[in-house]
This record gives sequence, C-alpha cells and structure tokens, in this order.
Amino acid sequence: MNPNNKPLILVTNDDGITAPGIRALIKMMNEIGEVYVIAPDSPQSGMGHAITVDSTLFCEKVKIDDGPQSDREWACSGTPVDCVKLGVNRILPRRPDICVSGINHGSNSSINVIYSGTMSAAVEAGVDGIPAIGFSLCDFSYSADFFAAKKYIQQIVRSAIENKMKKGMVLNVNIPKLPEQELKGIRVCRQAKAIWQEEYDQRKDPRGRTYFWLTGKFVNLDSGDDTDERALEEGYISVVPIQYDMTAHDYISVLKSWEL
Amino acid sequence: MNPNNKPLILVTNDDGITAPGIRALIKMMNEIGEVYVIAPDSPQSGMGHAITVDSTLFCEKVKIDDGPQSDREWACSGTPVDCVKLGVNRILPRRPDICVSGINHGSNSSINVIYSGTMSAAVEAGVDGIPAIGFSLCDFSYSADFFAAKKYIQQIVRSAIENKMKKGMVLNVNIPKLPEQELKGIRVCRQAKAIWQEEYDQRKDPRGRTYFWLTGKFVNLDSGDDTDERALEEGYISVVPIQYDMTAHDYISVLKSWEL
Repeated sequence: MNPNNKPLILVTNDDGITAPGIRALIKMMNEIGEVYVIAPDSPQSGMGHAITVDSTLFCEKVKIDDGPQSDREWACSGTPVDCVKLGVNRILPRRPDICVSGINHGSNSSINVIYSGTMSAAVEAGVDGIPAIGFSLCDFSYSADFFAAKKYIQQIVRSAIENKMKKGMVLNVNIPKLPEQELKGIRVCRQAKAIWQEEYDQRKDPRGRTYFWLTGKFVNLDSGDDTDERALEEGYISVVPIQYDMTAHDYISVLKSWEL
Repeated sequence: MNPNNKPLILVTNDDGITAPGIRALIKMMNEIGEVYVIAPDSPQSGMGHAITVDSTLFCEKVKIDDGPQSDREWACSGTPVDCVKLGVNRILPRRPDICVSGINHGSNSSINVIYSGTMSAAVEAGVDGIPAIGFSLCDFSYSADFFAAKKYIQQIVRSAIENKMKKGMVLNVNIPKLPEQELKGIRVCRQAKAIWQEEYDQRKDPRGRTYFWLTGKFVNLDSGDDTDERALEEGYISVVPIQYDMTAHDYISVLKSWEL
C-alpha cells in the first residue's frame, strides 16, 4: 500500500483502452484505490497468452477522460500480456497491490479462459505474484450495461485485497447479461467442460483465392451443478479460482506405466 | 485408423512450415503414419493460444519437399491454434489419430507452456479430443540437431497411440541440447514453478519515440527433483502430461469462506 493506504490497482483489458468495458472498470476502481491504466491501443481479442517477442513495443501516455487516473494512463502497441509485463517492469512506480482486467465484452467462462486476452493478462499478473482478477460481461454489445454488477465487482476486488488472496491465484469472474435487480449474487464455481464447434465460412477473394472466417457454436458438455456455466444460466455471477500449473498430476502414474 | 492401418498424423508447429524443426518431425512421422501438415506460413513464436477472430484466414496447399507427405501440406496465414482448428474442420479427410506439434526451436518447459504457440496447438487438439504431443528442443540455433532424439520422439508417439492416451490429454516433451549418445532417456515429470524476469531494452526510434524490446532471464523457483527443469538439467527428455482445466480446485473452499 502507498502512504495514504490506497491500494495501487493496475487496470488492463483486451478490447483496447477506449472500450466501454475498461472505462467502466476504471470508474469502479477509482472508488477503491489509486488506478494506473496500461492497456492495448487497439482491440486484442482472442490473443490468448501471446507476447511480442519478434517486434518492438510502443507504450505512450494518453489522456482519455477527466477521472482521478487521467494522468496515469498508457496505451501499448502490444498484447494484453505485454501490457502487464511492460507495466510492472517499466511504467508503474511500484508493484501493484492488485491487477484487474476487463470488463471484457463477452464471456470468458469455461474453455474461453484459454483463448482470452483479458484472462491471460490477469494470469500473467498471477505468474508475477500479483493478485489478479479478470472480469467479463456476457454481452458483446458496445452499449452493454457494465454498471449493473458494480457492487459485486467492487465487493470481489475489496475481498481479494482484504483476504490477502494467495500469491499466484487469479479469479475468473463472469457476469450474466441481466439488469441489476435480476442478478442473484455471486457463486464460486469450477470451470465447466465445454468446447467450441468450429464452422469455417469459406469464401473467394476478388482474385479467386480461397479464404476463411472463423465462426462457431459454443457447446457445454458439462451437466455439473457446480460449474461457471450453470451459475451464469441461473443468474449468478460466477467466480472461478484459476491457476496455471497445467500438469495433469493424476496422469503421471499412467505415463510412468508406459515404460517410456 | 485408415484402411491400411496407418494412423493419420497431423503435424503443425509455431516456427513456420519451412522451419528445420518441423521438417525433421515430418520425416520421423512419415515412418509411423500418414502425415498431413498444416502449419503457419510464417513464424508465430510466443503466440500462446491466440486465434484469428477479427481477420480472414488463408490456407493454401504447398509443396516443400519430395517426402511421402509432399502432396498433403498446407501453409496457413493464422496462428498455430488456427492451423489445428481449420485443419481438423476443413482440410483433413478424417479426424487425426494424433496431432504432433514442433519440433520447437527452443524450450517449452515449465512456465513456457503458456506462452508457446507450439504447445497451444497441441492443447487445442487436446480440447478437440485428439491425442496430442508438443516437442521442443532446448536449442534456438537453426542448425540444431533435431535428429539426436529421433528414437525417443518416435517411441513417445508410438506409445501414445498404442496405449490409447486418454482423450483430452496432451504431452509436453522437451529435449535437452545434447548429442545422441549423451541423452540419458525419458523422464515423466511435473511442470516446474519458474518465471521470466523481464528486462525491457528501451530505445528511441528515428523520430524520437520511445520503444521497447522484450528481453528477460529465466528463473527456476522450484528445487523439486520431479520437475521438467531438473530432468533436462540431468540430461533426460522431459515428458509432462498437460490438461487445460485451469480451476484451482483446492482454492474453491477458501473463496467460499470469503462469503462473497
């Protein structure tokens, strides 16, 4: 904490620094701590945990509105993960007390967590030992109501700070598309087993070359009542604790029996 | 399996379809099954689990050498994950029996798994229910000896097919930079806890704008003797079983105690 006891909050996202979702999150975080914004200068959806290794990174101070954070905002040419790495390493005056990412325009529940730039930014902060939370609203519309869940979002951030969330832990928070009075509360869950069934739309360009657009259908394969998908269906905000040890510990003994 | 009982093997990578690492892997896989190659048309290192959502994808048949797979190769404009999605959905005549990704130029052990395009391609196949293995050689040089571990690579692929590796399971295989006779064998391990300590190199462009290059130092924080880092240090090929449920199951009860 800084001398006036306000937590330093790093805010980032993947939809870009001017997206309504991050502007809403900044407003909510201004009521909790000293906000620094380091976010992509353009949309970076679906970037997963990509980092910029073969190219240069620009990161310039920008002024977007008149909030208390207005002279603490930087737009970065890289991915969401680059924003966190560069921010912590070069921009921030000290290590953040917490990193919040979002509010993402669209769901990052279940399997979406691995494709999401918003969640990867939060995971990167986690890897770096900074408590981190990614927020996503299940509404792709730019006119979506990002403030309906304001009290819950603030409550989750305050709880993570007050309860001293375990180092390396990351929360994946998804908010159903519902008006404020219909939100039923918060439910702690596990990630549902779900997949995207791809359906590529095939076209010809004006020169006759074939090209494709990715489209797809989300399929929930998990009927458990303790999943994030179930919580969202039932009108709850889902909170899934996330870690990034990808080892399938249970399968180690199976592999050993193969006698490789 | 197809009528002549040869497994269909999808080969991809993140260094691009002409990289020495994938050309070596293709040669090794030609001795095991019917190989189809769908790989990026240019280097895609560090792309993590990025997918192309806001742009078009091109995927064109290419002929690179005279191997048995020479008329079954496609170069794709997208990320490694795009290659797997598009390949399985649009290019392959049937579902692959296995997907192999690599051989990556450089390590994908421990935390590198989340940044790696090579491993993300394998994980994407896993999400789609296809047994998958990512191979990486701890040597960034383009003249690296990708054949030193040939017998081990083939053994791991054959074992995964013969033992009917569990649906959704993915193997992360890393090979130390050693001549063939010094490789000590294969060790099944867990992912080491490690981080990258970033050190951004700050410069000015000819117009006076500040820009950055990502550099960094790999730091292994894990002294366990059952990790992939330890195996590599001791001259073994590391095999880590990987899964993509990122839920921190142990932390659910802690979060519930916060009474959100």
